Amino acid sequence: MSIELRNRIFDELDLMVLIDPHTHINALDPASHTLADILGYHYYTELSHSAGLSKFEIEGEQLDPKEKVQRLIENLGPVNNTIQYSWFIEMCQAFFDFQGDQIDAANWEPIYDRALEKMRSPDWAQQVLSASRLESVFLTNDFDDPLEGFDTSLYIPCLRTDDLVFHLSKPEVRERLESSTDISISTPDSVRDALGSLFEHFKGNNARACAISLPPDFAPREVSDGRAQTALDAILSDGVEASASHKNALASFVFWNLATQCQQHKLPFDLMIGVNRGVYEDGVYQGQDLYDSRVSLIQYKQLFNAFPTVVFPISVLASVTNQELTSYAWIFPNVVTNGHWWYSNTPTFIELDLASRLEAVPRTKQIGYYSDMYKLEFALPKFAMYKRILAKVLAERFVIDRNWSESDAIAFGKQILRGNVESIFGL
Amino acid sequence: MSIELRNRIFDELDLMVLIDPHTHINALDPASHTLADILGYHYYTELSHSAGLSKFEIEGEQLDPKEKVQRLIENLGPVNNTIQYSWFIEMCQAFFDFQGDQIDAANWEPIYDRALEKMRSPDWAQQVLSASRLESVFLTNDFDDPLEGFDTSLYIPCLRTDDLVFHLSKPEVRERLESSTDISISTPDSVRDALGSLFEHFKGNNARACAISLPPDFAPREVSDGRAQTALDAILSDGVEASASHKNALASFVFWNLATQCQQHKLPFDLMIGVNRGVYEDGVYQGQDLYDSRVSLIQYKQLFNAFPTVVFPISVLASVTNQELTSYAWIFPNVVTNGHWWYSNTPTFIELDLASRLEAVPRTKQIGYYSDMYKLEFALPKFAMYKRILAKVLAERFVIDRNWSESDAIAFGKQILRGNVESIFGL
Amino acid sequence: MSIELRNRIFDELDLMVLIDPHTHINALDPASHTLADILGYHYYTELSHSAGLSKFEIEGEQLDPKEKVQRLIENLGPVNNTIQYSWFIEMCQAFFDFQGDQIDAANWEPIYDRALEKMRSPDWAQQVLSASRLESVFLTNDFDDPLEGFDTSLYIPCLRTDDLVFHLSKPEVRERLESSTDISISTPDSVRDALGSLFEHFKGNNARACAISLPPDFAPREVSDGRAQTALDAILSDGVEASASHKNALASFVFWNLATQCQQHKLPFDLMIGVNRGVYEDGVYQGQDLYDSRVSLIQYKQLFNAFPTVVFPISVLASVTNQELTSYAWIFPNVVTNGHWWYSNTPTFIELDLASRLEAVPRTKQIGYYSDMYKLEFALPKFAMYKRILAKVLAERFVIDRNWSESDAIAFGKQILRGNVESIFGL
Repeated sequence: MSIELRNRIFDELDLMVLIDPHTHINALDPASHTLADILGYHYYTELSHSAGLSKFEIEGEQLDPKEKVQRLIENLGPVNNTIQYSWFIEMCQAFFDFQGDQIDAANWEPIYDRALEKMRSPDWAQQVLSASRLESVFLTNDFDDPLEGFDTSLYIPCLRTDDLVFHLSKPEVRERLESSTDISISTPDSVRDALGSLFEHFKGNNARACAISLPPDFAPREVSDGRAQTALDAILSDGVEASASHKNALASFVFWNLATQCQQHKLPFDLMIGVNRGVYEDGVYQGQDLYDSRVSLIQYKQLFNAFPTVVFPISVLASVTNQELTSYAWIFPNVVTNGHWWYSNTPTFIELDLASRLEAVPRTKQIGYYSDMYKLEFALPKFAMYKRILAKVLAERFVIDRNWSESDAIAFGKQILRGNVESIFGL
Repeated sequence: MSIELRNRIFDELDLMVLIDPHTHINALDPASHTLADILGYHYYTELSHSAGLSKFEIEGEQLDPKEKVQRLIENLGPVNNTIQYSWFIEMCQAFFDFQGDQIDAANWEPIYDRALEKMRSPDWAQQVLSASRLESVFLTNDFDDPLEGFDTSLYIPCLRTDDLVFHLSKPEVRERLESSTDISISTPDSVRDALGSLFEHFKGNNARACAISLPPDFAPREVSDGRAQTALDAILSDGVEASASHKNALASFVFWNLATQCQQHKLPFDLMIGVNRGVYEDGVYQGQDLYDSRVSLIQYKQLFNAFPTVVFPISVLASVTNQELTSYAWIFPNVVTNGHWWYSNTPTFIELDLASRLEAVPRTKQIGYYSDMYKLEFALPKFAMYKRILAKVLAERFVIDRNWSESDAIAFGKQILRGNVESIFGL
Repeated sequence: MSIELRNRIFDELDLMVLIDPHTHINALDPASHTLADILGYHYYTELSHSAGLSKFEIEGEQLDPKEKVQRLIENLGPVNNTIQYSWFIEMCQAFFDFQGDQIDAANWEPIYDRALEKMRSPDWAQQVLSASRLESVFLTNDFDDPLEGFDTSLYIPCLRTDDLVFHLSKPEVRERLESSTDISISTPDSVRDALGSLFEHFKGNNARACAISLPPDFAPREVSDGRAQTALDAILSDGVEASASHKNALASFVFWNLATQCQQHKLPFDLMIGVNRGVYEDGVYQGQDLYDSRVSLIQYKQLFNAFPTVVFPISVLASVTNQELTSYAWIFPNVVTNGHWWYSNTPTFIELDLASRLEAVPRTKQIGYYSDMYKLEFALPKFAMYKRILAKVLAERFVIDRNWSESDAIAFGKQILRGNVESIFGL
């Protein structure tokens, strides 16, 4: 009974046209050119590497795309249990007419060729968007991105601020900031002015969010101008050799002023909490980050209290933080739950985290899912995975356990999937 | 199959007459007078506020109850997915003849009027107890409560001790302690005597537990009389301005002596572990508390070892602490699992936490559930929610997964629901 | 539907002959002699004690085995809900022809006698291995075990190193090390030589792993020879009275050199992370340990990076650490998930932890289960429990949720259960 029920709910959810509220798409080159763009995604390279493939086999500069795909395919057997592998199969089925359920050394080449042929079509990106029923996707733009050359209503800018908060001690970051704003960075006021200039630029180009990823030990606080000046002086003089104390003070100062800008410009501030960068030093590209799950949203108490009008869509890296996120979104009007991030973007954790949010957080304050994709082809299988789990939870925990009507459950699912994206990001 | 099975188990559990081992009922005014007493519960005001309702709309001193209910009802749409909303619907169905499953601007007024009419009945509290199949309920009494004017076998006193442990630096708390015990607080001995006097008073009035809620960073330790005297001198001289070190030493001293009193008077000591008070500073009344889930029962190692004859029924605020609770109750004879508290009192967390306790903690050491209610009407829907989940877990994990007979599963459920409340609290 | 499906998958998995990759079997006395050897297992004594049985009732030196069994049986009623109790019933059904599902004061004696009769059979151990379909079992050997008198291809040695890392300050441990290696311990080089000697001895006797259990606050780091010498001098002079700083430095030094030996000898290094010893001071034998779940694998970052060719099969004590384990095994080639340890070895936690690993960790890097048993009779019910859960997860999350074929799901289960044990430990 519950299988048919969840299939019916899935079918309804699957008809929807969606907006993807967080991706890493390059608007000037949004879709893949070969299967190497798909299998080069860190989810595949890091898993293959973890299962034994040398990174030198797949990270050579001169590596031909087809050769790279062959090497990866031949090493996917040990990871064909993973949900990430299932995304690859589902992409090949949906986009490249693949009929089977395993791709290996014996059958990969025709798929590669078929993909190449389709990807060469000049409207391939549009075909993918259409087949994926995607209306628009949010980007992740460097702060000095000119935001030119693309349709910002289809590819919606989002100001990514990790560099500003955590790497302002690097001369090259300061230079990028100075050259993109024409403001010399030397005082707290100049930092504020530069940030203001960035926000003007982004808001003027249809940006709908500011975003940042944060390490587990970050606990932002308000920093006085005097302390900020001292910190600025230190990093202007010593660069990355400045003491951790100065770098931390400056990080909090910039972060706090980003929140202030979000307040002034009515932009949601996406916080992605919990990642430690570079834990596995010899890992493949983008496959080196992990985390310490001992993090608490209590670290953001001051922030949430200080900026009641800024909406904070929050993603947490570890499922053990999900109950705190659920509780903080239940209490703080400005805290919103946002998707299922990275190491928590696998079915078992999604199901548990989703179920606990659906029953305790106001329905208007939950952003169901984002794909986090680098290439457009990934939205389809990732959203499909999420919609299957959403349908399962709605079927089992609302229709069966709580006697909801199927139509009420579907309406709730639709709000999580799309309605809230529109209302929260002002689309 | 499993749906019918769990319905059969639920039906058997639902026939039981229960004792509610932890509530905030005012014995002199136990039931609601209007729907405003129900919707004024922080679960509704904080969720509505979180979803956008200004607290000034619902916290005005002069607000007419009907007006307050209207404002809240009109703002419940965004939270009608929550389990808390479902409690409200179930109360209206059970007590006020409501037939539907949504209450909104279009249909609330007749329900309000019908509730008002029923609540005016002089035996309304008794009607609610009877319809809820409640035999008695535990209270949460201030330490200076005279415990007069009510039937202590129906409304069972429980000595709440947060003020004594955490607020003795406040002159008004010391004055309340001195005036209720006729003992001047100036030395460790005088504190001990005053606590002894309170316990005599409570035990003489049928008290069955001592209780306290504790912040996540609390780690009680034995404090010498010398250190306690220094701390007392400091708070007698400086009040709340005394240093954290003195306040912490005094907190541990008082806490340790409460455990000593529990030992002497054979009273269980309910520990509710993990809450941070006032995290959301501008939240509604009782809607400001949250938590840091980084807490461990290892913080109570000394306590559990020092008081082997004191029973500690323990509630944890975060589900991530539930496995520790399960393990500590499995090992320590004096640790008992107690209900599903606050932010863990939602179905997904209850199901997970309950399932892990049922299979690893001695069946005699699990107190299934308490309502934590402020008004009697809440016991019915809260216990019903719990019993549905208990029936689900017993059906799926005992009858199906482990081949238990249905009658054995039901007997286990009944023990968790009532038998253990009697044996643990000596009823 | 899903019940039949999981039964079919279980039946296939249950036909397999297995290798148990972690036990505490004494190869010279592997099976039980009376039911007292089974019920004397700490899982029963600690649960009975937790439920009220005095430890003096069951820990008397002179206690007759039959008397001990009677006392325990008469106190198992309060724990007959636990999964541990179900193991006892399943053993009695499988080995001693017991037909019922409860053993109590009324029916225990014939079972005791029947067990005694069967256990007296000279080939009892072989009968148990055969009925349990066990081909071989890993041991947990003290570092000075002569490894003589048994078939090391049936009882496979494993070098247990807790004493070396955490108790080298005890004179008796140093003496054992010196007498087993003929090396006087006075310098870092001598420690290295002694460890090398132990590894030679173990490798020469078919050892397939090095293993250690670790407290939650352990964070190994490389220690210079200079610092190690200072620490050695301190413990040689002051023994267990040496400062924690010296003991910690020496622990890291020895641990790091164990990893170096594992690298040189190509031995996997089993890390069992998270236990605090002696938390319940008056607990029964082996029933005193608990934990602080605030632990992170980030504490092992340096180790995993420094020893890329050492395979680390990792067990975590608390389910809240399981997501980190899953993620670290997904990223680090040398991190492997290993079984479900102790307080996480109950069905609800196994199901959740297993499900999240199966979908995100390369299938070649998951060791499904080990029994951790002290007597051979325990493998059967413990593995049966695990296989039922594995069948449930494969049925529900792979065949139903992800449309896997039944045969693919079974093949995956078999790899987890046995194939990976062979490949990872080089059997």
